Amino acid sequence: MIEEKNARHAEKMKKIKAARDRMMATKTDEKGLILVHTGTGKGKSSSGFGMILRCIAHGMPCAVVQFIKGNWITGEAEMIRNRFAEECRFFVSGEGFTWETQDRARDIAAAQAGWEIAKSQILDPEIRFVLLDEINIALRNDYLDIDDVVAFLQTRKPEMTHVCLTGRNAKPELIEAADLVTEMTLVKHPFRDGIKAQKGVEF
Amino acid sequence: MIEEKNARHAEKMKKIKAARDRMMATKTDEKGLILVHTGTGKGKSSSGFGMILRCIAHGMPCAVVQFIKGNWITGEAEMIRNRFAEECRFFVSGEGFTWETQDRARDIAAAQAGWEIAKSQILDPEIRFVLLDEINIALRNDYLDIDDVVAFLQTRKPEMTHVCLTGRNAKPELIEAADLVTEMTLVKHPFRDGIKAQKGVEF
Repeated sequence: MIEEKNARHAEKMKKIKAARDRMMATKTDEKGLILVHTGTGKGKSSSGFGMILRCIAHGMPCAVVQFIKGNWITGEAEMIRNRFAEECRFFVSGEGFTWETQDRARDIAAAQAGWEIAKSQILDPEIRFVLLDEINIALRNDYLDIDDVVAFLQTRKPEMTHVCLTGRNAKPELIEAADLVTEMTLVKHPFRDGIKAQKGVEF
Repeated sequence: MIEEKNARHAEKMKKIKAARDRMMATKTDEKGLILVHTGTGKGKSSSGFGMILRCIAHGMPCAVVQFIKGNWITGEAEMIRNRFAEECRFFVSGEGFTWETQDRARDIAAAQAGWEIAKSQILDPEIRFVLLDEINIALRNDYLDIDDVVAFLQTRKPEMTHVCLTGRNAKPELIEAADLVTEMTLVKHPFRDGIKAQKGVEF
């Protein structure tokens, strides 16, 4: 009985493996990707920071530009600054979420300063992966011009450089231009039950 | 004109901040969470590893148990083993995705060995965050019993310990038991255009 089940399983897995091997053999191109992490769920920034870890592990120098979230330095940011100063450049633009500053002119200036830094990091031939953390919030509020950002990524980004843009409400123009888009969807959140943001999980 | 727009913006942000401050004041409890990252999109494991970074930054010791994916050591795993051996314990169970091994009995034994390790790490009072990477695949294939896993998390997990379970096709029983569930949805993927998995992004 159990031997039969295991034999059927082996047969099925063999077919899946053959199909997968055939599929993978058609995927031969390498190129730098435009990645977007959006949606209202968790994990948009933390998976961006997870990719930074991967790049460092592979010896690929990185840069992070944090938009909007400046005041609220997260655990990942602190860690990268302290432990990976050699392998990853780290820039902060902006002074916290916009409902904290209540000053639109200052937010626009901060976002634009961040975008100038972002462009120079993307153009730098040393850098292989650039994380533009929470840039979608700056784009959504029109602190940055979406057409400028998309045009730059499409025409000026070096071919092998990856750029990852995070934040909820990614603009349709950016999704259209991107190679890989993931939407993080909130299925269930403990805030609803009076649980506050937790160290290690949320920040 | 622009001053008027900025003044309206400041007024609106002030209201948002007041509402947010009121909302946050009701969130006072701390507890260890059961977190689930599921869905077919990217970022399930990498945001788990991003949380490991956060915990290390806050001085919270961690453990990772990798289910299923054993053969394919990802960049994050390599990095954690090399650079954070003091702060994060790392265990691998299983020998690669099931279509690679084609041996159901061996996969079951590996998953069960992984679960034994997972339980001892969760029970260890030193450890504050446990990542059970790709355990959902083992649960989905019934290599582990979902009722056992849920019962253990609900009755034996120390109150302040966080446990994060990743992998597509999370079982409904687990989603029901979890505090925070995020579904990563694939919006767009470059495999469709013949682009292969990229170093730093996919592994």
